Amino acid sequence: MTKLEIRNIQRKYSGIDVLKNISCTLEEGHIYGLLGRNGVGKSTLLNIINNRVLPNKGEVKLDGEVIFEKDDLLAELFLINDTLLFNNSDHLKVNKYFKLAKSFYPDFDEALCDHLVEVFELDVKQRIDKLSTGYRSILNVILGLCVPAKFIFFDEPTLGLDANHRELFYKELLDNFSKKTRTFVISTHLIEEVSHMIDTVLILNEGVISVNETAETILEKSWALTGAIRDIQEISKGLSIVGREAIGNQQTIYVYGNVGDIPPSIQVKSVDLQKIFIELTSMKERDWREIKQSIKV
Amino acid sequence: MTKLEIRNIQRKYSGIDVLKNISCTLEEGHIYGLLGRNGVGKSTLLNIINNRVLPNKGEVKLDGEVIFEKDDLLAELFLINDTLLFNNSDHLKVNKYFKLAKSFYPDFDEALCDHLVEVFELDVKQRIDKLSTGYRSILNVILGLCVPAKFIFFDEPTLGLDANHRELFYKELLDNFSKKTRTFVISTHLIEEVSHMIDTVLILNEGVISVNETAETILEKSWALTGAIRDIQEISKGLSIVGREAIGNQQTIYVYGNVGDIPPSIQVKSVDLQKIFIELTSMKERDWREIKQSIKV
Repeated sequence: MTKLEIRNIQRKYSGIDVLKNISCTLEEGHIYGLLGRNGVGKSTLLNIINNRVLPNKGEVKLDGEVIFEKDDLLAELFLINDTLLFNNSDHLKVNKYFKLAKSFYPDFDEALCDHLVEVFELDVKQRIDKLSTGYRSILNVILGLCVPAKFIFFDEPTLGLDANHRELFYKELLDNFSKKTRTFVISTHLIEEVSHMIDTVLILNEGVISVNETAETILEKSWALTGAIRDIQEISKGLSIVGREAIGNQQTIYVYGNVGDIPPSIQVKSVDLQKIFIELTSMKERDWREIKQSIKV
Repeated sequence: MTKLEIRNIQRKYSGIDVLKNISCTLEEGHIYGLLGRNGVGKSTLLNIINNRVLPNKGEVKLDGEVIFEKDDLLAELFLINDTLLFNNSDHLKVNKYFKLAKSFYPDFDEALCDHLVEVFELDVKQRIDKLSTGYRSILNVILGLCVPAKFIFFDEPTLGLDANHRELFYKELLDNFSKKTRTFVISTHLIEEVSHMIDTVLILNEGVISVNETAETILEKSWALTGAIRDIQEISKGLSIVGREAIGNQQTIYVYGNVGDIPPSIQVKSVDLQKIFIELTSMKERDWREIKQSIKV
């Protein structure tokens, strides 16, 4: 089974440590969600993994081999973001662009490309620089689904896509995933919409991967406790609280980890992924360190 | 009360009528939602209203005066999209960019700008071309909220914004709206998130404004009818059906308009705005004409 190892990546911008120390292993046959607040460096990390930006330290290995500037290994990785695959191809027509992709990737899935062009109603005779924001995203996601790489990285694939087109993309991605053994890494802010697709969650927070867990485990560890403010305060001690909400004299705390024995005056509920992701991606590093120490994530 | 009239706008691209005949009136003190599928021409329309793209026909009037190339009238309109306010300002630092805005708009709201920079945690010493996609959107929405124009148009303001920042933007926009008499027009694909803010809905579909209604009226006209497929088929005739869903032998039809007498075997529910917007923005023009004839929208 092919493995992509990201080891001790560090990257500074203007003297600031954007990525402090990033390590994780991506395995074949998974759909990863790369989540995090604006500006935490998700795009930088994806660019580094795909050899488009150099790290200050660290390396990326495919099955044990460092991929840096090795074209045969890099061909197994493909990053979809808002830049085009080839420089200065903005003036090209869409069909010409797909032909060019095919010439670089002989195993480019033409049948799938034709299908996607049809279902998304993409005008292949249009020039790329005349496409709307949404249709430019569509061009990019089609490319991502048709390229024969093993690891496909989508950086905000649904920018500007309407609700129907977003649904269609998720459906086609899952369909593709069920037919070919490959790995998708999706970085997005529409967490609710992808939460049913991703099996493993990577949360990037303050320069490190703060969470690397299956979605299932995260769900099992996440609880919402609701009760009178005084009652909640009494049981709060020792809990790993990742978020709070108050309405009137009622309070809800979101807990990540063990909740222990809870008195009957407190209502205990499980939390949906979207909600817990929002809480987890918003935490400060200091709070995280404390929580990790207490629950040993 | 200031009024912006959009009259008979037509615009072709590559020989295709993108905008066939667009007329509507925007009044002061409202929040409009401009909705529609990818590629229907929402951005083109906003560019035309703001004098950045010329229409093939039609005109835009502010309180009866044609705004075309009249700087004093155009100063009352402001369009926020993914292009910057000034050409070649990509290399500027954020604080320099805001200064430039202030020099063009002496009434630029500096206090609000400082507040927004703080709550969004925007690094004002950063160069604009070094900002992430999300922070570039943040730069733009800050500008949109601080500029003293009467009509502010946001074209996909939340592109790349994380969930917390989107919430913050909606909150600040409503806060701003409650303090100053102005008009916001928001074009977005995150319909669910804005549905509680917009009071009037403009749906652009196949080159025309197919719906121009208050959100309240749309809610009053929208129904979901669920029942056995056979029962639903029996009552379908004469109804203005904008969408359908089937699970097993049960079917739900979404109706826009009068439902008349419904037998007790059919469950009648109201529909939330997000759902009905998705159905309304997806309709083909032909179906729309039929529906409009039957219910006289």
